[in-house]
Amino acid sequence: MSEHQIIEKYFKPRQSNIALGIGDDAAVIDIPEGKQLAVSMDTLSEGVHFFPDTRPEDIAYKALAVNLSDMAAMGAEPKWVSMSLSLPEMNEEWLEQFMQGFNELSNRFSVELIGGDLTQGGLSITIQAHGLINKDKAITRAGAKVGDHIYVSGELGSAGLAYLNKQQDKAVKPEDLYKLNRPMPRVELGLALNGKATSCIDLSDGLAKDLQHILKASNVGAKLFSEKLPIATSLQALEKQKAFEIALSAGDDYELCFTLPSHLDKNELNKFNITHIGEITEDKKLILLDEQGDEIPFVFSGYQHFI
Amino acid sequence: MSEHQIIEKYFKPRQSNIALGIGDDAAVIDIPEGKQLAVSMDTLSEGVHFFPDTRPEDIAYKALAVNLSDMAAMGAEPKWVSMSLSLPEMNEEWLEQFMQGFNELSNRFSVELIGGDLTQGGLSITIQAHGLINKDKAITRAGAKVGDHIYVSGELGSAGLAYLNKQQDKAVKPEDLYKLNRPMPRVELGLALNGKATSCIDLSDGLAKDLQHILKASNVGAKLFSEKLPIATSLQALEKQKAFEIALSAGDDYELCFTLPSHLDKNELNKFNITHIGEITEDKKLILLDEQGDEIPFVFSGYQHFI
Repeated sequence: MSEHQIIEKYFKPRQSNIALGIGDDAAVIDIPEGKQLAVSMDTLSEGVHFFPDTRPEDIAYKALAVNLSDMAAMGAEPKWVSMSLSLPEMNEEWLEQFMQGFNELSNRFSVELIGGDLTQGGLSITIQAHGLINKDKAITRAGAKVGDHIYVSGELGSAGLAYLNKQQDKAVKPEDLYKLNRPMPRVELGLALNGKATSCIDLSDGLAKDLQHILKASNVGAKLFSEKLPIATSLQALEKQKAFEIALSAGDDYELCFTLPSHLDKNELNKFNITHIGEITEDKKLILLDEQGDEIPFVFSGYQHFI
Repeated sequence: MSEHQIIEKYFKPRQSNIALGIGDDAAVIDIPEGKQLAVSMDTLSEGVHFFPDTRPEDIAYKALAVNLSDMAAMGAEPKWVSMSLSLPEMNEEWLEQFMQGFNELSNRFSVELIGGDLTQGGLSITIQAHGLINKDKAITRAGAKVGDHIYVSGELGSAGLAYLNKQQDKAVKPEDLYKLNRPMPRVELGLALNGKATSCIDLSDGLAKDLQHILKASNVGAKLFSEKLPIATSLQALEKQKAFEIALSAGDDYELCFTLPSHLDKNELNKFNITHIGEITEDKKLILLDEQGDEIPFVFSGYQHFI
């Protein structure tokens, strides 16, 4: 099949609230009045961001998920995506499965594929997500204030544990592998935080490193309450220090970490499975406290893209 | 350097008409009233779209140029780009040169880098271009009408000849190599055609193949006048059939091919270096005519992305 036949077969949009979709030199979209456009771009490459034995539907799902997660972190509603797919060779069966995983998640959030590129090369997927935000309501990393409460959604470390075990050829629990391959972007939570949260980030490189981006951008510090961290069940069999390390530094959670000036009530916490984990401080460092309020010595690291 | 240090050093925007630039989970941009957003995405990969000995500044220039060329083909004004850069290893000197080529062209058109990704992997660049178009004024491929005149900008085949010669380890003229590595996106021409041209496409895969996209989308045919084709000087030493073949099918020209209901006068032709090369016909095929108006047997092919 030629590139154009492939595009016609697999990449035609299934719905259209856009002026011009796939098939021309560019797509053309209307931005409603009172809205701003949010755009983010993330690439996943084989051997770097996913293991070579990852199923094509999981690769596509995750490539889309990490981009929708960026939209969620801004409080944006994801709307349209462009995708550049680099494939070592044309394989229709593979592509069929790939698009199945893509469509599963894009349908879930009514996100439309509006364009992209298909090239020959190492297996790699770059997605650009476009979302809409009410004017001047984007939740940045820069708004955290001293005294704000720090929250995180979901559980931490399950995806990271799967990654580390797989890397070391150890057994991986299916539920951990699922968290690694199929993170659920917290789009509804991001939209609910819009106009409320003072800052927000999605957890791609580990809570410690990602929270530090908020601290740096907001020019503040933070204390985390170790006993409150929602450490994933799978990690609870590990030594405590090791469990903290994975939960804080292993990455790939794609949960939201955000700050709020006031406490959330139990209903709100339960609705989105959110946990109160710490407070923003004046002292510009990140510290981890034990139950007695004493500092636990901890080296806060996170996934490094280039070592 | 960490990814974040690299981003801070090389990718900070130099001007800002955007609500939020690089450094958060997404960029946020304002779309002026009465405008639509045009978006396109193109990837260049080493060994597929450029030779491994291509200079980093030329790789960056071309990766941006082909995307701005898509904007030009829509009649859009390019404004912002996101870039995902995949590098085998971190090399500051390389990156410095790369960004020099990028900035040279982005400055030329006041285009701003608003985000992207930096990953480890085979050398590959994906750029998403964003442009603005007056509402409902995008020039698509679908508007060519029977009797319309077909025009093309610049000269054809020089880049293609450089590509073919380099591929076969033959000598390449510096001016041909320059055309291959440094195509000039015809942004001003695209803007001038806005509201006038009935269809437009940029020439990436060769005039024959790209024009056929217009014909298919517009449900028409075309005749091309062989003696009028602006065949590049470098090709004139070749056998006539070979010169046609390269000029029509070799690709990488990044000129604009477009249709207009009326003739352009000499001043307009000269201003943008445009040539009248043919006419849109009812008969849904593409034919090449000699000086006597007889059909020249010709197989219209073009660059195939997956053979």
